Amino acid sequence: MEGGHGGREGRRERGWEGGGVWRSRLRDKRRGAPGLPVPRRAMPGGMEERYSKAETLALRRKHIGPSCKVFFAKDPLKIVRAQGQYMFDETGEKYLDCINNVAHVGHSHPYVTKAATKQMELLNTNSRFLHDNLVQYAQRLTATLPEKLSVCYFVNSGSEANDLALRLARQYHGHQDVITLENAYHGHVTSLIDISPYKFNQLGKDSKKEFVHVAPSPDIYRGKYREDHPDPASAYAEEVKKIIEETQKNGRKIAAFIAESMQSCGGQVIPPVGYFQKVAEYVHAAGGVFIADEVQVGFGRVGKHFWAFQLQGEDFVPDIVTMGKPIGNGHPMSCVVTTREIAEKFGASGLEYFNTFGGNPVSCAIGLAVLDVIEKEDLQGNAMRVGSYLLELLVEQKKKHPLVGDIRGVGLFVGVDLVKDQQKRTPATAEALHLIYKLKEQKILLSADGPYRNILKFKPPMCFTMEDAKHVVEKIDVLLTEMEEATGMKTGNDVSANIQCKIKANEGSPQPESANESTSHLNGAACRQENGFYPEKHSVPSKTIRT
Amino acid sequence: MEGGHGGREGRRERGWEGGGVWRSRLRDKRRGAPGLPVPRRAMPGGMEERYSKAETLALRRKHIGPSCKVFFAKDPLKIVRAQGQYMFDETGEKYLDCINNVAHVGHSHPYVTKAATKQMELLNTNSRFLHDNLVQYAQRLTATLPEKLSVCYFVNSGSEANDLALRLARQYHGHQDVITLENAYHGHVTSLIDISPYKFNQLGKDSKKEFVHVAPSPDIYRGKYREDHPDPASAYAEEVKKIIEETQKNGRKIAAFIAESMQSCGGQVIPPVGYFQKVAEYVHAAGGVFIADEVQVGFGRVGKHFWAFQLQGEDFVPDIVTMGKPIGNGHPMSCVVTTREIAEKFGASGLEYFNTFGGNPVSCAIGLAVLDVIEKEDLQGNAMRVGSYLLELLVEQKKKHPLVGDIRGVGLFVGVDLVKDQQKRTPATAEALHLIYKLKEQKILLSADGPYRNILKFKPPMCFTMEDAKHVVEKIDVLLTEMEEATGMKTGNDVSANIQCKIKANEGSPQPESANESTSHLNGAACRQENGFYPEKHSVPSKTIRT
Repeated sequence: MEGGHGGREGRRERGWEGGGVWRSRLRDKRRGAPGLPVPRRAMPGGMEERYSKAETLALRRKHIGPSCKVFFAKDPLKIVRAQGQYMFDETGEKYLDCINNVAHVGHSHPYVTKAATKQMELLNTNSRFLHDNLVQYAQRLTATLPEKLSVCYFVNSGSEANDLALRLARQYHGHQDVITLENAYHGHVTSLIDISPYKFNQLGKDSKKEFVHVAPSPDIYRGKYREDHPDPASAYAEEVKKIIEETQKNGRKIAAFIAESMQSCGGQVIPPVGYFQKVAEYVHAAGGVFIADEVQVGFGRVGKHFWAFQLQGEDFVPDIVTMGKPIGNGHPMSCVVTTREIAEKFGASGLEYFNTFGGNPVSCAIGLAVLDVIEKEDLQGNAMRVGSYLLELLVEQKKKHPLVGDIRGVGLFVGVDLVKDQQKRTPATAEALHLIYKLKEQKILLSADGPYRNILKFKPPMCFTMEDAKHVVEKIDVLLTEMEEATGMKTGNDVSANIQCKIKANEGSPQPESANESTSHLNGAACRQENGFYPEKHSVPSKTIRT
Repeated sequence: MEGGHGGREGRRERGWEGGGVWRSRLRDKRRGAPGLPVPRRAMPGGMEERYSKAETLALRRKHIGPSCKVFFAKDPLKIVRAQGQYMFDETGEKYLDCINNVAHVGHSHPYVTKAATKQMELLNTNSRFLHDNLVQYAQRLTATLPEKLSVCYFVNSGSEANDLALRLARQYHGHQDVITLENAYHGHVTSLIDISPYKFNQLGKDSKKEFVHVAPSPDIYRGKYREDHPDPASAYAEEVKKIIEETQKNGRKIAAFIAESMQSCGGQVIPPVGYFQKVAEYVHAAGGVFIADEVQVGFGRVGKHFWAFQLQGEDFVPDIVTMGKPIGNGHPMSCVVTTREIAEKFGASGLEYFNTFGGNPVSCAIGLAVLDVIEKEDLQGNAMRVGSYLLELLVEQKKKHPLVGDIRGVGLFVGVDLVKDQQKRTPATAEALHLIYKLKEQKILLSADGPYRNILKFKPPMCFTMEDAKHVVEKIDVLLTEMEEATGMKTGNDVSANIQCKIKANEGSPQPESANESTSHLNGAACRQENGFYPEKHSVPSKTIRT
């Protein structure tokens, strides 16, 4: 992997460092008559840039739906190349990527590209024809799972996978109702927005459908039962049991309980061990099934295991597992795996399930290549080693910084919960946003998420190194210190006192923008989506911090 | 393109011609101890086969959902390679492909593969980063559409596209109800099964949701208003108007009318010109939008135009167009295009729309390459020329064969409606199935679809040639003649008489299998899916034809 951090490739000067003069000149030259083809511009690495960044942005505003947001809306990144855990912008500037869990085995992995190319040269067709890639991939994938999870359905996205999981669950006993977790996000199609409080809460108070039941998030830092509770797993599971009983009293029937094995958008929440077992027991007793959504967290990210639900112990086996994002290292593919019994009940309806692209030989070749790389490069081991090191480093930060309320994570899935007040655990939303923008200046890509968007979210490509971990934590340390000093927070080993963070965004403004943003998270009006997101109107709070 | 039809590649002998001895021996050798890796076997063209066909089938039964069906269930095809309009099985046998509309610019097109590889080597990430491919592709795609259709959402499948189209439509004026056509199929996710009579009719009589309204299919051969009606376009549109009025009386509100620009699974139905304009007028007056589903029929297939809805005339512009299958020549991608107004209403909800894989630089590079090939190889022109020739040849067949009731089509989208009785137009379902199986023996892949699965469905890769058209029609001619002779149907120029086709499947059987199949279409219990499908229990009717 390439050494160094945040450096520039080659010797080319960045024109914009001198106030944008060079870029402006270049744009002027390239303007020409409207409608004429824009000449291409050579870029570092032999690439070509078709449009200037301003032109790309203008075309995007014209032709892409305004609901499709960009990172860092005030100054979005134009990324033209990526390799391993690094992304490069149009000027050759290099960014350390801590957020793209889709580029699981590393950006642009040559082994994956080669496998895709080889299969594209031969054949890409639908699964109504027999093909070895399909069955070999199904065999390899099910071999990573407990034995009873043996039947696959290949689809194209996490959303398609979760939708199909719901169809399987509903067909199983003819039940309709679904229990989902607070702050959960399971996908963008209609049926999944219905069961994603992360989304439907933004649509007003009547947006919850009657067949949807929301259980408390098993978050032992911010939730109903916390780390001081003697048995939070049972207590949270009991909440699910209560919902089931209530539902049944109303004559309704539970088809499924669905949860990410660890909540991602919901705030990097790791459920207490034993929770899933108990929930599964209650849900099964009600004739429902347990759907483990591994779209964000599967494929070895947790290090110790290949699947995050395995953190609950060997005595827990979900009825349906859904996969997505990392499965094809960016290639659009995903999978639902279930038991023979559920699959046969689904088949008994007589309705065929056909997915045009799902399970095509190219997607399967890519899926196989990803499994190969995880194995050959011991990326699961790497996730465990680097993840543990990253956690250690972050725990040191917690000791030092009053802004750090909680560190949680496993493998290369880590959350840093920023607080304004250690005891009250007041979410430090503006501070998290500030940090993210400051890290971008340092050429580090990190995001903030969770219901208050105050949780720094690490989910880097699995080739992330010890050096990367050290580098990013060092930068965070410096930034936290700066923020704490600027606002009079006490930095040191004693951070237990109730120190009110005095960072205020846009001081003096009667309606500070970041306060709006913070509120918009609380009431859910802004996007809180996987990978984090920065709304168009964001104003970097740093402007108002006295440094 | 390679010449000849149905020939074998190379000089290798097919072992199974001698009674399967060679294949059996080979399988025996490869069995080995269970669980051990199976040695690969060299195949024609330098490929390798990992498993024997029987092993592939066994693994498929074990690991792939039973709802996922194969073509020709009694003897499925194992396809290992494809090029242009040809597919090759594991023995090197070559098939002429008349059904794969996904391989739009031809199977394994090197230009598309090259574009994918080049981009995969550089970058594949989500659309929250700016990228030229995304905006360039959106620009190129919208340039093929009427001006007001200017805003794109990139997604991964036709199902994701149609689901998003419904979300856009419902957000537009807050209406919920949807008008769909008889026999329509719009996708496999929950929200689309709800609006697909092709699917929900199979789930029992209470399966239609109250917000769904089914309008008669504008089929002038089998529908309510036929070719002898003075104005079928207005008459069918009037039916939609009646539905709207009825709906409004019940206090409900129409969000959308959705229809394929030409019905594919529904039976290759081409709506009469002027129908869409009138429907759009009524739907707009009710505050709804017109969704044109071009997933099966777009991208120049109709020859004269790039989009099938353009067959209705320049005065018709849908509010939303959905795309899919051919868009990436097999790569999982699709798109929704709409107006600025609808896109802004969608954005106004505050809900972000994020699709992890949608619009990634690789998918966009592939989409651009497909557009390039269509243009460079004049595939739209080819569709027009070869399609017209194919229609001419088939019209000759209609004159000659009493089994041919109707020929309809445009460009390389053609349907042959087989009937047992020219006047009653009784669907010749068993005969269509027989023909499909016989054509397979002749190394030609064709399918039958429609509500009675009696309609031969041509939708070949767009590089289909005059020679291919001639070849397949010659084979059909011979087979139709054989079938008519075997059953005493009169073959010749005078086929208007009421000649009852005497082909009976499994004569003497109290419950003939193919009769079951035929019934299962009538009541919808069997799959009638795009690309046609042959259920596991199929028995080739030819066995009972006295030849």
